[in-house]
Amino acid sequence: MTTAPGERAPSFDPVAAMASRIEDGDQLGALTLAQELHPAQLAEAFAGVDREVTDLLVQRLTPGELGASLTYLEPHYREDLLVGLEPDRIASVLEHVADDVATDIVQELPEGIGSAVMAAIPLRQQHAIDALMEHDEESAGGRMTGQLIAILPDRLAGEAIEDLRSIQPDATQPFYVYIRDAEGRLGGVVNLRSLVLAASDTPVAELAVTDVVSVSASTDQEEAARLLKRYKLLSLPVVDDDGHLLGALTADDLIDVLEDEATEDMFRQVGVHEDEDLRSVRRSIRFRLPWLMVNLLTVLLAAVVVAAFEDTVAQVAVLAAFLPVVAGQGGNTGIQTLTVVVRSLAVGRLAGRNLWRVVLHEAATGLVNGVVIGAAVGVAAWLWQGNTTLGFVVGVALAVNMLVGVIAGVLIPMGLQRFRQDPALSAGIWLTTATDVLGFLVFLSLATLLVHAIG
Amino acid sequence: MTTAPGERAPSFDPVAAMASRIEDGDQLGALTLAQELHPAQLAEAFAGVDREVTDLLVQRLTPGELGASLTYLEPHYREDLLVGLEPDRIASVLEHVADDVATDIVQELPEGIGSAVMAAIPLRQQHAIDALMEHDEESAGGRMTGQLIAILPDRLAGEAIEDLRSIQPDATQPFYVYIRDAEGRLGGVVNLRSLVLAASDTPVAELAVTDVVSVSASTDQEEAARLLKRYKLLSLPVVDDDGHLLGALTADDLIDVLEDEATEDMFRQVGVHEDEDLRSVRRSIRFRLPWLMVNLLTVLLAAVVVAAFEDTVAQVAVLAAFLPVVAGQGGNTGIQTLTVVVRSLAVGRLAGRNLWRVVLHEAATGLVNGVVIGAAVGVAAWLWQGNTTLGFVVGVALAVNMLVGVIAGVLIPMGLQRFRQDPALSAGIWLTTATDVLGFLVFLSLATLLVHAIG
Repeated sequence: MTTAPGERAPSFDPVAAMASRIEDGDQLGALTLAQELHPAQLAEAFAGVDREVTDLLVQRLTPGELGASLTYLEPHYREDLLVGLEPDRIASVLEHVADDVATDIVQELPEGIGSAVMAAIPLRQQHAIDALMEHDEESAGGRMTGQLIAILPDRLAGEAIEDLRSIQPDATQPFYVYIRDAEGRLGGVVNLRSLVLAASDTPVAELAVTDVVSVSASTDQEEAARLLKRYKLLSLPVVDDDGHLLGALTADDLIDVLEDEATEDMFRQVGVHEDEDLRSVRRSIRFRLPWLMVNLLTVLLAAVVVAAFEDTVAQVAVLAAFLPVVAGQGGNTGIQTLTVVVRSLAVGRLAGRNLWRVVLHEAATGLVNGVVIGAAVGVAAWLWQGNTTLGFVVGVALAVNMLVGVIAGVLIPMGLQRFRQDPALSAGIWLTTATDVLGFLVFLSLATLLVHAIG
Repeated sequence: MTTAPGERAPSFDPVAAMASRIEDGDQLGALTLAQELHPAQLAEAFAGVDREVTDLLVQRLTPGELGASLTYLEPHYREDLLVGLEPDRIASVLEHVADDVATDIVQELPEGIGSAVMAAIPLRQQHAIDALMEHDEESAGGRMTGQLIAILPDRLAGEAIEDLRSIQPDATQPFYVYIRDAEGRLGGVVNLRSLVLAASDTPVAELAVTDVVSVSASTDQEEAARLLKRYKLLSLPVVDDDGHLLGALTADDLIDVLEDEATEDMFRQVGVHEDEDLRSVRRSIRFRLPWLMVNLLTVLLAAVVVAAFEDTVAQVAVLAAFLPVVAGQGGNTGIQTLTVVVRSLAVGRLAGRNLWRVVLHEAATGLVNGVVIGAAVGVAAWLWQGNTTLGFVVGVALAVNMLVGVIAGVLIPMGLQRFRQDPALSAGIWLTTATDVLGFLVFLSLATLLVHAIG
């Protein structure tokens, strides 16, 4: 592997390298290292080292060096990094980042500092930031860059290239040239490569794709990311309701969106929040405790069911040993189905006719697995406790509960989706409630019915 | 939203549209629709409609139309689609797809058909496919395209553009021009935009970034995708051990890699396999049943623990009602920690000093949540059953088990990672084993010790 810029070896760890210089009291060495690192590595160092080190670096690096690394830093670290600086210095750093990143930072800064920073930045960027601020942060409009290349539809390829050379556009949107008519409406897009390879006298309109895939400014960023992935694009133009070109989204931003959404889905399923932060235990507790409390209520419901059969359990105490087996396997097989369904919904792979195929597929899989596991446990229970009826009761309850699990695993996320709730958020809680309560009910009812043969 | 190519409305569903034409017996209509759709939409239709429809379309569409849609189709559908065609026709379709996609398809086809297809494709593509086949399918070498633009380092910008115009390179790697010396070694990369905007007499070497981030052909595709994301690149060159340029990876391929890895991680955690297929219940059972069996063994272990306290349960049957509460909350809080740790490991966010910060953070969070939930349940149990000692036993057992959960949630994935096991695969099973067994042990031991005060 050719080493990356500033990287000494594939396993080079910028955080550790920075920390060891600081521990040696070598502040100058730390600063020199920061200047040698690739901005992406400097961003990692910022995210990983202690506060006093970032304070030192932020004071001593140039605005250009700081600005470059901000692009690579996760959003919630950016504000932290800058908040102690003078507004003038923050403004000079922001000149070195793309407008969409600058907008995010200004919005994250405390009110007073944010407006002081805005007053100190160049007019062009002020206007750009004002325009971006009108859009929701998580929408296409909030994520887009306005720094793109656009030309009129009546130019020839050679003229267009001359135009670009003379304008030297300040574009972060690197490889597409948008065709925008005199009213500012998006008319097409030309791949920069086609423009370069075409004969100079080819009309630009001939090179353009006119059926452009685009999104409106209010489109959710995840939907935009899905569209980009679906059509394998590297960039996606953003237009207003009348088709005027406002800006464009790039693949590197949307990769982050897709990965953040996957993390968010994994976290939400277990009541963890993606904005948790290693530096605040209180914050983690605030996010996680409510989910545990809701879970507690549902598990107490299951406890009430068991308590209702107290007499049966008092007669045959060993029934208690099979409670976690019945509930656990029903929950496990249900979670398998739930995970498939929730993920398929998230990546947009469940639509129309597929729905019924999924239901049938999962029901068939659950039925077979339920019968196999139910039979295995039934036989095990019979051999262990020397009681055929107990084996029968455990086996049947298990098979039934596993079928309950897969059916709940399909219906719960589908139902949540139908009622416009996020299926990732609470589906797991409802599922285990169903498998706990119904599992105990079936198992203990059957045991009560046959208690004379088990006891 | 400007509609996408061939799209009638944002909610347009190509699968449903295709299916309705077939149901009406309108085969010509179905074919016409297929020709009007964007290749990405045609791919969705292929994935969603019945076999007889795909057979019809595959027979009647042109090789170019078919080839375009293959790029967008998920790998395991591609082989299915083509396998019934004559090798000559498959070969003519493959001429319309990128070399890396063609390589995947040839590898997926049954042996005899694959070699007949290889014999029928043009020599240039044969060589390209042979070269790509040398690499593992999931490595950078297996994913790369060799169709890129490369120039010698001593050219001027204007000359380079003239070169490109006269060669008209067949590149799927659109926006970077690689600098390759006479021995074929990668010397740098020039952004096509810089090349276009530069004065014609600027040496290309002056425009080039020479510290190129690259990967070796044997690099795992996920590692390559992480690198691309980390440095916010749209493309990543692939080199051999001597630095010779072999090909390049593009962002659109690697977006798929990142999303597939996320799906895989979610699925593996619950014993589902990403290669499951709606059309085969047997396959789903084969993947899921073993995981359920392993889980069964661990939950039977928990059952043995409970059975060991049969006498205590016989004396105080209501203890059974609290078993799911103690096990459930310990497991839930542990899963929260586990999810954070597994995901942080997957996205490479846990390294060096961060490890201890995570352990401390999770232990503190778990301790507070454990005490709060333990106290709440203890009080609830006391009020419900009118027994202080029972409340005390339930509360203490819960708090202890929740602490067990968070500690296991950090240590288990870390340990699996240390022993080079995939933390996503089995961490959940070990975790619930720990919280079930230890939870029951603590709860029932304590209850046995104080049974005279509870009973």
